[in-house]
Amino acid sequence: MFLYLPKRKVIKMNLKDYIASIENYPKEGITFRDISPLMANGKAYHESIKQIVDYAKAKKIDCIVGPEARGFIMGCPVAFELGVGFAPVRKPGKLPRKTICANYKKEYGIDTLTMHKDAIKKGQHVLIVDDLLATGGTVLATIEMVESLGGIVAGCAFLIELDDLHGREKIHRYDIKTLMHFNEML
Amino acid sequence: MFLYLPKRKVIKMNLKDYIASIENYPKEGITFRDISPLMANGKAYHESIKQIVDYAKAKKIDCIVGPEARGFIMGCPVAFELGVGFAPVRKPGKLPRKTICANYKKEYGIDTLTMHKDAIKKGQHVLIVDDLLATGGTVLATIEMVESLGGIVAGCAFLIELDDLHGREKIHRYDIKTLMHFNEML
Repeated sequence: MFLYLPKRKVIKMNLKDYIASIENYPKEGITFRDISPLMANGKAYHESIKQIVDYAKAKKIDCIVGPEARGFIMGCPVAFELGVGFAPVRKPGKLPRKTICANYKKEYGIDTLTMHKDAIKKGQHVLIVDDLLATGGTVLATIEMVESLGGIVAGCAFLIELDDLHGREKIHRYDIKTLMHFNEML
Repeated sequence: MFLYLPKRKVIKMNLKDYIASIENYPKEGITFRDISPLMANGKAYHESIKQIVDYAKAKKIDCIVGPEARGFIMGCPVAFELGVGFAPVRKPGKLPRKTICANYKKEYGIDTLTMHKDAIKKGQHVLIVDDLLATGGTVLATIEMVESLGGIVAGCAFLIELDDLHGREKIHRYDIKTLMHFNEML
């Protein structure tokens, strides 16, 4: 018996319709891209996760890594669907066992991110997933930690890329997938 | 042609094997239950999410609600698998549009949680998902917000319940599902 499994139905859906743009937030001249309407819509949320899963399936991924908290929202369903583990990147003081850390520059001062020391096994192929690629500081600090644990960064997937902040240039050596492009300034 | 779809294979897996117990953390006499080894194991993570999905499928769920950040880790894959939306519960200052808030008592002082005002539509059946039922303060504040928006709390699902903290008594009017039981004290 031949069993033809249907291919995933391609949904003609403009994911940008589900992003709320909040002008002058958090400050004058900045347009904040709010993903919560997308998350609130079962079809739009499912479709965006599926697009990242399709991207990941073309690679051999052993583990998803995502920075808190919106990286969990995008990365955890990808890990679940692929049947692989999820390693969280967290602010200091949130992980109870031995951690490593990496710093990154924010607009005002330095911020620190941490991961458990045993979060990645040497040689594991890692996909980093986050909601937003802005200046690239968070993803670069995440890459630094993954590689210091011996992980191989197979790709970086984002729901949204803010083109005018040029985060892509910081991680140009890595494979990048973004589902939507916006600018920070109107 | 009859097509018999296989039922979900029941995996004989003790999820407790994937919880790390850290003694005297965050303070003397307390045993912290760390879910990160479970998340790191693709099979254990998938199985725990599936158990919550099976529980949810027996109800008519329109939306998953989860408190940051570990509520995202458990709740988002459940929303994805059910094909429904996810509404985040966040600390103040994290949500960019109009919010409502609820307070809850912590060991020292009061903490506040927020949700977007349009996160739940009136009459929607909501499943609240979090990693841990401890004293029940977080879930009670979450229930308060969901109900004030007109949502119907169809159930509350937790990966872990700390029996000796009696959180269950606070939410005894609601349907509760927990995958594992521990005590806070050794």
